Amino acid sequence: MSDSLQEFKARFAMISRLGQAAGLLGWDQQTYMPSGAAMARAEQMAALGQMLHEIGTSDETGNLLTAAEAAIAGQPEDSDDVRMVRVARREFDKATKLPVALVTEIARHTAIGQDVWARARHANDFAMFAPVLEKMFDLVRQSAECLGYKDHIYDALIENFEPGTTAADVATMFAELKPDLVALTQAIAQSKRPVDDRVLHGDFPTEQQKALTLSVVAAIGYDLTRGRQDIAEHPFCANFSRDDVRITTRFDPKFLNQALYASMHEAGHAMYEQGSPAAYEGTTLSGGASLGVHESQSRLWENLVGRSRAFCHWVYPQLKSQFPDALAHSDAEAFYRAVNKVTPSLIRVEADEVTYNLHTLLRFELECDLLTGTLAVTDLPDAWNARMEAYLGVTPPTNADGVLQDVHWSCGLIGYFPTYSIGNLLSAQLWESATAALPSLNTQIEHGEFDPLLGWLRTNVHAYGSKYLPKELVLKATGKPLSARAYMDYLTAKYTDIYSL
Amino acid sequence: MSDSLQEFKARFAMISRLGQAAGLLGWDQQTYMPSGAAMARAEQMAALGQMLHEIGTSDETGNLLTAAEAAIAGQPEDSDDVRMVRVARREFDKATKLPVALVTEIARHTAIGQDVWARARHANDFAMFAPVLEKMFDLVRQSAECLGYKDHIYDALIENFEPGTTAADVATMFAELKPDLVALTQAIAQSKRPVDDRVLHGDFPTEQQKALTLSVVAAIGYDLTRGRQDIAEHPFCANFSRDDVRITTRFDPKFLNQALYASMHEAGHAMYEQGSPAAYEGTTLSGGASLGVHESQSRLWENLVGRSRAFCHWVYPQLKSQFPDALAHSDAEAFYRAVNKVTPSLIRVEADEVTYNLHTLLRFELECDLLTGTLAVTDLPDAWNARMEAYLGVTPPTNADGVLQDVHWSCGLIGYFPTYSIGNLLSAQLWESATAALPSLNTQIEHGEFDPLLGWLRTNVHAYGSKYLPKELVLKATGKPLSARAYMDYLTAKYTDIYSL
Repeated sequence: MSDSLQEFKARFAMISRLGQAAGLLGWDQQTYMPSGAAMARAEQMAALGQMLHEIGTSDETGNLLTAAEAAIAGQPEDSDDVRMVRVARREFDKATKLPVALVTEIARHTAIGQDVWARARHANDFAMFAPVLEKMFDLVRQSAECLGYKDHIYDALIENFEPGTTAADVATMFAELKPDLVALTQAIAQSKRPVDDRVLHGDFPTEQQKALTLSVVAAIGYDLTRGRQDIAEHPFCANFSRDDVRITTRFDPKFLNQALYASMHEAGHAMYEQGSPAAYEGTTLSGGASLGVHESQSRLWENLVGRSRAFCHWVYPQLKSQFPDALAHSDAEAFYRAVNKVTPSLIRVEADEVTYNLHTLLRFELECDLLTGTLAVTDLPDAWNARMEAYLGVTPPTNADGVLQDVHWSCGLIGYFPTYSIGNLLSAQLWESATAALPSLNTQIEHGEFDPLLGWLRTNVHAYGSKYLPKELVLKATGKPLSARAYMDYLTAKYTDIYSL
Repeated sequence: MSDSLQEFKARFAMISRLGQAAGLLGWDQQTYMPSGAAMARAEQMAALGQMLHEIGTSDETGNLLTAAEAAIAGQPEDSDDVRMVRVARREFDKATKLPVALVTEIARHTAIGQDVWARARHANDFAMFAPVLEKMFDLVRQSAECLGYKDHIYDALIENFEPGTTAADVATMFAELKPDLVALTQAIAQSKRPVDDRVLHGDFPTEQQKALTLSVVAAIGYDLTRGRQDIAEHPFCANFSRDDVRITTRFDPKFLNQALYASMHEAGHAMYEQGSPAAYEGTTLSGGASLGVHESQSRLWENLVGRSRAFCHWVYPQLKSQFPDALAHSDAEAFYRAVNKVTPSLIRVEADEVTYNLHTLLRFELECDLLTGTLAVTDLPDAWNARMEAYLGVTPPTNADGVLQDVHWSCGLIGYFPTYSIGNLLSAQLWESATAALPSLNTQIEHGEFDPLLGWLRTNVHAYGSKYLPKELVLKATGKPLSARAYMDYLTAKYTDIYSL
């Protein structure tokens, strides 16, 4: 290996390790940190963040990158070194294009924004949040102009989360989905065979839920020698290298679904990180390709596996042995139906598989309108409520249950919501390919054999780390570009059966 | 404030916060880190360590320091700014005097050393450890020469742990202690009224021990909104700012003392850190003055408080309510006697108050002889065993129970052991001053009122952070230099009573 390539790798390995250290600070903040330490933790994270930014954007790093680009000239387009340098260039350019003053201003406004948002939501007072939101959209608009884009200002933003994907891609995706989703939602609402989900509500003691969820995530392939499960208010997955990938969950002692499906979801993210190649560790190719691809993994395990009839029949006897009283008068089929109940509802994070994407669609449309100035922030609540009625047939009684429900905008995460839907669509498209490659997949799942599926994902998704752009990866793994087709086929077949449509 | 002083403070605040982040990585490694993450964690710690070293020794930091020294010229000797800059200078000089190659070599040899030590101890094979130890003493000798010293090579080493203290100070301290300690140990061994400690052995379920230790440390003043207790193989205290000071302990379900006194010991360290002034946060004046002063706080709470008759009478009813069966046939006085049993033994960390300092004395003498070449590494086991026999009247049956018992030397911690004894002596000297200021202290403790004592320590020790050298601090807090007198008086009175000498 050339000296300059070696120096480049050493520099980015150091940046990667410092980023992992910063990750641990974040994990600890949400799990074990004493409440009194909040200010100190903020200072520690700021110091490490500043350090990372300084190293990541320094002339020295820029020179190492330029030298590395010279060193790889002529190497095959598909080689790890070429891709490694290319990802580094993408990150470096993004970081150096933003003026430090703007980055600082956004960071400061994020801290304020989150705080004001939490108070406004609590007080159900959109007017309190409006000026903060307006300023956040201004700042984000400025950052988009610095980053640059070809067609639509939204392109510059989604690029942060889903490299190589444009607003036009997202618009096409939702245009494909929208009519079918709205129609399916309405058909289910009119079904003569509604779903009874009382089996999920009862007494499910936390200790037994802990044991159950841990045994389920271990069974599906989450490696607990390189991971662990803790409790946090909002379930998340955090990784500090492929060998330290932790999940969190929360337990509702009166409702079984919360912890079980959140655990499978986070384990899906975690297995993706654990499957990142050892050779990519400490390079720009480690970890997942994008938020959307990440979400395809979590959703695949949560929904395509976890809410399948096969899985429900496998897991039910375990549930019954942990909760013999609560499940005394139920069976696996009732459990399967219950975990697949469809109800148009107000809150995105509680939405079922069918209606979920209507929530993200609505947010995407509103973000575009706010960014381009078609919609004023003061008119946002009305626009929100009108779309909720049109797409889901429900109107939020309060802004707290409507436009104020998500934290994302308050911390500048604009261009983020579509990645949830990309993940949903991709989960079904991957599932279709996996099923074609593994004809006995359903039977395997019914017998608790998850290795073949995980193996397929390891080979076709995880093994690439973040070497390829999401679009390239989807093509490699499924042989076609991402579309809504597999997802709509999956939903239609499944819910036609459940609701006897 | 002058600009240069402000820039100096900002730089050292950043260094301090990065050091705290590194601390969290270490804490996590010993508490919650999955086993598979060991290599990744080592890389993260190395990256952060390298970063800290680079910033801490950079020309830019050196220039900020020089400018700050100019800015404080003429300010009173006792001002915070003067002291802050002086501590920074001490640290900077120490860090820059050591060649990077030597620092790296010691770090590398420490990793090897710890591993070989653990295996040699397990195999009871000193010959396996000898070459590693020899090289470690060589490297440490080289670092001492780089750091410089006036009289004795040991001075350069103890300076790392106990600034301003010399080998001559330590020799004087042990010369004062040795004859009296040996005599007291022998008198106790010949006592006609031995101590029965069976009350401490029995069934003490871990869950109840957890509840008890947590309630005890909270009662003595450990602030759990700025701290927490976790389980670790070796109890320790780790702090990442004054507002995040964590302790760990371990529980032996068959032996009550382990967790109770380890928790009080670590809480003593923790309260010192929690008492560091808020104004010193992020400066070189935060935290404790030295390892010795730190140990005075842990030992004071563990021994002077925790093993006092007053405390035992206060805590006993709580013990009895947690462990009604195990303590059915005992009482507070029996408990008091049991926790003060004196037995010359092989292992330092299990030693009682009386014999403990003979263990550290022996290590100090051997370290000096090894450093100056009076003793060869190959002759170390014999020298160890001969001194054990002379001072404690016991001879280790194996090297694992003798010269191989402590990890310190394998990781280059030479010059460290005396700080344990400095802590013991100082704990008694502080106690004497506190008792003079608080005539009802004993009664207060008997009633579970620990605030007055903690208040006295806050004012007379904690409030100074690391502003003063240990010698200055001792003078301020107790009005006299450190000596063995208070400690020997305390031991003699207490054990004359217990053993009817």
